[in-house]
Amino acid sequence: MTLDVADLVARARDGQARAIARLISLVEDAHPRLREVAAALTPFTGRAQIVGLTGPPGVGKSTSTSALLTALRKQGKRVGVLAIDPSSPFSGGALLGDRIRMTEHAVDPGVFIRSMATRGHLGGLAWATPQAVRVLDAAGFDVVLIETVGVGQSEVDVVKLADTTVVLLAPGMGDGIQAAKAGVLEIADLFVVNKADREGADATIHDLKQMISLSRREIRGPSWRQPILPTVASRGEGVDDVVKALEEHHAWLSSHGELAQRRAARARSEVEAIALRILRAELVDVRGDRLAELASAVVERTLDPYAAADRLVADLHG
Amino acid sequence: MTLDVADLVARARDGQARAIARLISLVEDAHPRLREVAAALTPFTGRAQIVGLTGPPGVGKSTSTSALLTALRKQGKRVGVLAIDPSSPFSGGALLGDRIRMTEHAVDPGVFIRSMATRGHLGGLAWATPQAVRVLDAAGFDVVLIETVGVGQSEVDVVKLADTTVVLLAPGMGDGIQAAKAGVLEIADLFVVNKADREGADATIHDLKQMISLSRREIRGPSWRQPILPTVASRGEGVDDVVKALEEHHAWLSSHGELAQRRAARARSEVEAIALRILRAELVDVRGDRLAELASAVVERTLDPYAAADRLVADLHG
Repeated sequence: MTLDVADLVARARDGQARAIARLISLVEDAHPRLREVAAALTPFTGRAQIVGLTGPPGVGKSTSTSALLTALRKQGKRVGVLAIDPSSPFSGGALLGDRIRMTEHAVDPGVFIRSMATRGHLGGLAWATPQAVRVLDAAGFDVVLIETVGVGQSEVDVVKLADTTVVLLAPGMGDGIQAAKAGVLEIADLFVVNKADREGADATIHDLKQMISLSRREIRGPSWRQPILPTVASRGEGVDDVVKALEEHHAWLSSHGELAQRRAARARSEVEAIALRILRAELVDVRGDRLAELASAVVERTLDPYAAADRLVADLHG
Repeated sequence: MTLDVADLVARARDGQARAIARLISLVEDAHPRLREVAAALTPFTGRAQIVGLTGPPGVGKSTSTSALLTALRKQGKRVGVLAIDPSSPFSGGALLGDRIRMTEHAVDPGVFIRSMATRGHLGGLAWATPQAVRVLDAAGFDVVLIETVGVGQSEVDVVKLADTTVVLLAPGMGDGIQAAKAGVLEIADLFVVNKADREGADATIHDLKQMISLSRREIRGPSWRQPILPTVASRGEGVDDVVKALEEHHAWLSSHGELAQRRAARARSEVEAIALRILRAELVDVRGDRLAELASAVVERTLDPYAAADRLVADLHG
């Protein structure tokens, strides 16, 4: 089948889910005409609000995403969701998105949901996800929601991609929050305490407040106050407040020059990740024999791995 | 303080824990004289059996590591442990190693334990861990045990580093094992079912046996049969059998040419990771201004990120 990139982009912008899905697949699979795709998308990017949603397992991320979709749709906003699965052989894979896909939103043309497994990707989220975000941005979604489970490196990567990062917590994680400390504070633009009807919700909110008031003096300026919003996502309670807070944060970002700064940082790491991918392909594909030869010398202990890497890089520079 | 690399390596080989710790720190921090360190270590490497230990949270990895240490020490083997923590803002950090360090092994000169947090490292385990393994190998440990919690990418990376990979499971993870499927089978050289005195242990072992017998026909040759070993690590039960299975697997690897093959693959990915690190430093440090300039063009939509990355790479080669 001939690939008509311009037509595909036009159809994606027309809201056709299949065209959007195809574009994301082209990006994920590093299609040979990826550069053409990237160039065709670019004029239409830069409009969406990009929201990251993360939190430890069990806080109700899928339910919260679904409730947030409902609330955003009520306002007429089109929403694209990327459910990032840092898939593990122990967890299976692509769990988050599949669960959501089953819900009421599956047939809503104003919603597009896609799961992406990071396993096997160089640098996990770093490379493919920003490109998928660009697809959804160019397709005209008002909000792009990147959902990931908070394990390992993925939630840190999500922060780098998002304009606004929502950290989801739940009662009964008392120790978890204590342990989390500064890490969570650094990444959260707003906190949502889900399952707020459960015992311990007040304590969780109280702990968070204390952590924030301590940290604000130390690591943050006074101008953005990280809100703490209680929700019961399964009943949609409190979710409108989250939507409101997202708007407020976006407005704050824009008026304080932070949006431009975050987007510049994002573009920087995006370009860097692609450049590294190109260089890696050169090392492995083009210089594969040389790499194997140098690796043999390392096994035989006639070269140490640094000396071997130096030679490989020198070869590359030519 | 002047750094005398040769003296440091000599003291590490003499079993001095402080020298070993210092060498690993030099490696982790990418000390300017890293190349000298790598070269000094190389003649003494290639002797240790490198064992990876992974499994989902809650299966008793720290207890199992501790029990394995006791069993290996009984045989007079010196053991170095790297406890890899794919630290998350939600889990704090460096939990595994700290817990072990508190135990009986802390004062045993035949044991060295170190935790490494992967957060913030480019490619997580890919770069710093192999270098730390080389330190322990060169220091003369008979076994280097790399322990990591099975979330995200880390357990896959561990497999790439280890001669032998042990996957730890526990009863009551029924669904987990079902979900895990081929992923776990691909990475495990041997299975340990810990907490084998608990209800459901027989079912877990049964499930594993079925998975293995199915997969052997499909994805494995007949020559290595992944053993399934029940343990109660908290009481040291079954752990000697694990040690025996580790020896058997090592012997099998050696006699089937697999050891050389795995070590060649490891050297290859090690050299590749270091080369990528060098190239990344060139992009970010040396060409940082150019990267910022190109990133601005991406934000302004005058360039797409691929075109920007192509220019950056061309500059680097140029």
